[in-house]
Amino acid sequence: MVRMKTSVRFAGMGGQGIIFAGIVLARAASLYERREGRELFAIQTQSYGPAARGESSKSDVVISDNPIFFPFVERPDFLVVISQPAYEKFIDEVTPSTIVILDEEGVEDRPDLTYFDIPAIRRAKEIGSQGAANMVMLGALIQISGIISIEAAIRAVSDMGHVGALEDNERALREGFRQGKVFQAEG
Amino acid sequence: MVRMKTSVRFAGMGGQGIIFAGIVLARAASLYERREGRELFAIQTQSYGPAARGESSKSDVVISDNPIFFPFVERPDFLVVISQPAYEKFIDEVTPSTIVILDEEGVEDRPDLTYFDIPAIRRAKEIGSQGAANMVMLGALIQISGIISIEAAIRAVSDMGHVGALEDNERALREGFRQGKVFQAEG
Repeated sequence: MVRMKTSVRFAGMGGQGIIFAGIVLARAASLYERREGRELFAIQTQSYGPAARGESSKSDVVISDNPIFFPFVERPDFLVVISQPAYEKFIDEVTPSTIVILDEEGVEDRPDLTYFDIPAIRRAKEIGSQGAANMVMLGALIQISGIISIEAAIRAVSDMGHVGALEDNERALREGFRQGKVFQAEG
Repeated sequence: MVRMKTSVRFAGMGGQGIIFAGIVLARAASLYERREGRELFAIQTQSYGPAARGESSKSDVVISDNPIFFPFVERPDFLVVISQPAYEKFIDEVTPSTIVILDEEGVEDRPDLTYFDIPAIRRAKEIGSQGAANMVMLGALIQISGIISIEAAIRAVSDMGHVGALEDNERALREGFRQGKVFQAEG
């Protein structure tokens, strides 16, 4: 059997919901997703050292169909970035095959790698929930990567939030999922 | 030089702010604390596997004055528990020297280990912020363990919240810090 292991790094500024996005992904995978009938393991980490100062932060997730003994993400399979300073901080920690998912406004630069521009901040504003750009990005990641289903993400979000926030987050997830599809079709 | 490494597990039910408490502690240690002039490293993890289902969850933190290569907490130095189901789930994952910090109402059982009863849920209600029992527990942990200063925790909280929540959280941290002292004096 082919073993599955995927790593995702979310990066952005404080207040952009980077940690929340990572937790939703990890919970969705482990609690509500299956891979060929098998349950998944997930670990979500925040690592802080002297280099953690500044406005940018990261939130890492590893998902596997086996127990995870090395949870650190050194070079993620997917890098999801919402802000330019976070892009600058983490863009060198990739592999040639890392797929980068960018907020089209929040990030100015473009990498020399496969990437997708997602209008997450703009769409979140349009659906009346400015803080939900993180969920738009997560929806897009789910569409592009196929790691988990959008339904699993929505179930994970519904465990975690208040009712109002839940509706916003669900709408944002679905919007991101749709956006990911659009950009894949174009790419 | 003596190396310092401490592990803390927060355990409770969904909605009790277990993850937030872990993140505040990790950020406080790495961003705002020093140990004999040296900066600290911290890692905060959520691990999920098939056993993660149910109402109880954990949030683990490792703090060290050296880079952390093994971030898993198997048997924590400090176990901070807010609810009885979480107590039952995690009380066997300890060492004889683990110090247990319990919410005096939320947890019914008492361990055969050094422990502190903290009236976190009650104090949080009294200061008008029912959701801040997690911060009362964190304040108590800080007093009892001396891992970080209360000021570092307050600075970390102030990075992360909205203004109203910040005031509640700061008040709850200070209240917990005071409670930890009371119970230490009695113990």
